[in-house]
Amino acid sequence: MSTYSPRLTRLIDGLRRLPGVGPKSAQRMAFHLLDRDREGAAFLGKTLGEALEGIGRCKTCRMFCEDDACRFCTPARVSAGSICVVEGPADLMAIEASTAYRGRYFVLMGRLSPLDGIGPQELGLDLLSQQLASGEITELIIATNPTVEGEATAYYLAEMARGENVKVTRIAHGVPMGGELEYVDGGTLSHALSGRQPL
Amino acid sequence: MSTYSPRLTRLIDGLRRLPGVGPKSAQRMAFHLLDRDREGAAFLGKTLGEALEGIGRCKTCRMFCEDDACRFCTPARVSAGSICVVEGPADLMAIEASTAYRGRYFVLMGRLSPLDGIGPQELGLDLLSQQLASGEITELIIATNPTVEGEATAYYLAEMARGENVKVTRIAHGVPMGGELEYVDGGTLSHALSGRQPL
Repeated sequence: MSTYSPRLTRLIDGLRRLPGVGPKSAQRMAFHLLDRDREGAAFLGKTLGEALEGIGRCKTCRMFCEDDACRFCTPARVSAGSICVVEGPADLMAIEASTAYRGRYFVLMGRLSPLDGIGPQELGLDLLSQQLASGEITELIIATNPTVEGEATAYYLAEMARGENVKVTRIAHGVPMGGELEYVDGGTLSHALSGRQPL
Repeated sequence: MSTYSPRLTRLIDGLRRLPGVGPKSAQRMAFHLLDRDREGAAFLGKTLGEALEGIGRCKTCRMFCEDDACRFCTPARVSAGSICVVEGPADLMAIEASTAYRGRYFVLMGRLSPLDGIGPQELGLDLLSQQLASGEITELIIATNPTVEGEATAYYLAEMARGENVKVTRIAHGVPMGGELEYVDGGTLSHALSGRQPL
């Protein structure tokens, strides 16, 4: 079969490294960039270089971080004495946007998933364990997603924290604000009922 | 609202320049590249640079081309005396893969679409017009897509070629090989009937 020229083939291969991009999408993206948006291609290339060079991980909370001092691990947040465990950076940003929490975070960058080879090591749980053992943490708030793997991770974390005598809490799961009971699924409703609170 | 760090924000902006990638996909891609596939990100950055530097357009057929000599405009192909007009590079490759055509091409890189500001100028039709006027072309094969815009483009091209006394043909539209009449749409069937050929 006929193939594209070497550089074009390589560009298509490069674009296929993006998650969720197959051969046809990569081809479409390559044609778009070369034909309509060379400036955009140059911009993307530049931002990739900058990001690879400048973005690292915070040594304390594992969030992406550019400077030596992570802005989610400020002294004020550390002194709050709580750690909120989330699966990914987007979850952290969602909680930040709610402005309901002002303590530290711990970003797992994934969830326990033995079938995919993701165990406690890959999630940096040894680091979290050290932090819990330091005696400065009073509460571990688990905000993993309410999926099968997220729940398994939550149980694992809870066991770990109990070993260190740290109070463990899980964010509430129930009927979302503005939701109507009629349209809420059974799993959520049963969580909402079992998690009922005195008024 | 809280935002990501500057470089991460810029990387997400860069990824959004890709067609079909919105803010959420761009975010997911950025996290994937930074967390799981830094090598892939470096590779993508490199291929983008190489492509921008090395891929140009053939001055004759408008196909993407890396070297001075376009491999679809070889003397053997030129001497065939026919030009096949296609909408995009992927269409050219599809016809090449069929191995049923061995003449020259002309890649429009689009189709006439006045609402999007794409007129004859944007499709390089002045260049095609010069080639038709050279007297070396005996047949113009129009292989634009059988969509409304593709058909409009085909009619425009046919008028242009008639002005230069060049034979114009349109690739056949009908029931695809292996297709069953029962499942073929009415538009295709009516094309197949009106394009019937003596056996």
